[in-house]
Amino acid sequence: MQRYFIQKKQITQSTIQMTKEDSHHIKNVMRMKIGEKVTCCDDSQTYLCEIKTFEPVVLLSIIETYDENNETTVRVLIAHGLVRREKTEEVIRRLTELGCSEYVPIILHRSMVKPMDEKSSRWQIIIKEASEQAHRTHKMVLHSTQTLKQLVEQTKDFDLRLFADPSMGLSSLKQVMSMKQFKAIAVIIGPEGGLEPSECQFLIESGFVGVHLGKRILRTETAPLYVMSAIAYHYGDQDEN
Amino acid sequence: MQRYFIQKKQITQSTIQMTKEDSHHIKNVMRMKIGEKVTCCDDSQTYLCEIKTFEPVVLLSIIETYDENNETTVRVLIAHGLVRREKTEEVIRRLTELGCSEYVPIILHRSMVKPMDEKSSRWQIIIKEASEQAHRTHKMVLHSTQTLKQLVEQTKDFDLRLFADPSMGLSSLKQVMSMKQFKAIAVIIGPEGGLEPSECQFLIESGFVGVHLGKRILRTETAPLYVMSAIAYHYGDQDEN
Repeated sequence: MQRYFIQKKQITQSTIQMTKEDSHHIKNVMRMKIGEKVTCCDDSQTYLCEIKTFEPVVLLSIIETYDENNETTVRVLIAHGLVRREKTEEVIRRLTELGCSEYVPIILHRSMVKPMDEKSSRWQIIIKEASEQAHRTHKMVLHSTQTLKQLVEQTKDFDLRLFADPSMGLSSLKQVMSMKQFKAIAVIIGPEGGLEPSECQFLIESGFVGVHLGKRILRTETAPLYVMSAIAYHYGDQDEN
Repeated sequence: MQRYFIQKKQITQSTIQMTKEDSHHIKNVMRMKIGEKVTCCDDSQTYLCEIKTFEPVVLLSIIETYDENNETTVRVLIAHGLVRREKTEEVIRRLTELGCSEYVPIILHRSMVKPMDEKSSRWQIIIKEASEQAHRTHKMVLHSTQTLKQLVEQTKDFDLRLFADPSMGLSSLKQVMSMKQFKAIAVIIGPEGGLEPSECQFLIESGFVGVHLGKRILRTETAPLYVMSAIAYHYGDQDEN
């Protein structure tokens, strides 16, 4: 069933007022009719709804409210060195599908592009669409662009903090992940050319662990997908049968 | 170091004659000089080489021949329902990086595109480039487009044969993978809209096992990346320390 992420403020008693964009999607893209059903999700609960009216925006009546959890059992933050816009967009879309909890673009020595926070509203749209399509129950959180220092501060409460580096990573991702059950994992992935030795050194001093991702050299836009897939595979999902 | 996949017939005693395309790459893209070193790989051995001459094509002299293995410990065949050209190309590129052994485009009921074997020389170039960049020691094998029936026949000697389906997959990929150590794994992934019930039924009767890939719905071009990442993570690499 078609799913839409909404904000709590769109709900009034048993009615949900859709945004202009989602109204357009329901009417003109999906060509749905009055009486048809959609699912809404506000990052805490899921609502089975029926289409009531189309004008001026779509109004839904809530038929049933329920708890649902389609997320992995572990909180995962991926911090990714700034890369070209199209690559960042693809990484954001796929990480959302794969169940990543939080994404942070970071400024590293070898980042070839400038901070792109002006793009963040476009990225939010990608995240909303990918979350809906993937049937997530929580949208991936997009943080604003940070320096390595800010990221170290930001991830203080994570019980596993990693950076991926083919040469500094003495252990594999699997070896480190198999040590114990973690609650929150943060992973830093460099831009093209990777992290600089001084950045690795700073991260080690800040309590991060270097891991390698196997013997093959993954491109900067493939590495986050491998890491998120591996973690999702390792931990499985909430409420799994 | 820059790596090039070559064919055995390019080697004469201790000299390797590069193709026109790779000569162009060495001279004009990498702008390398006489005496500089590159690595060549012929799907069985690795050669450390030095550039000897540029004209009419680049000649390399072999300094050292050695065995190297940057592959996963398990043979993985991914069969993917035909999807749009750009998506297929991206999947082929990333699966090559992630260590996939064999790729088969397959014709399924919901495939929206026609067989694209005329594209296969373009796909071979993508595989060669991605194998070189990822430092693989064996190129991913690209099979010609097959029907489901041909694929069943083709994968007879695999000791684990799976298809991904959110509804028919009663077990997760991890549950099935954890049963024992497998030598060769084949996984079928549907096109947009997935496999048809009759296709799932045929696969079950042919000895395939349906698995789900978690609670999130992955797009047809994301699912192969998740599966390959998970298998590579689960099995690790040959010669791993």
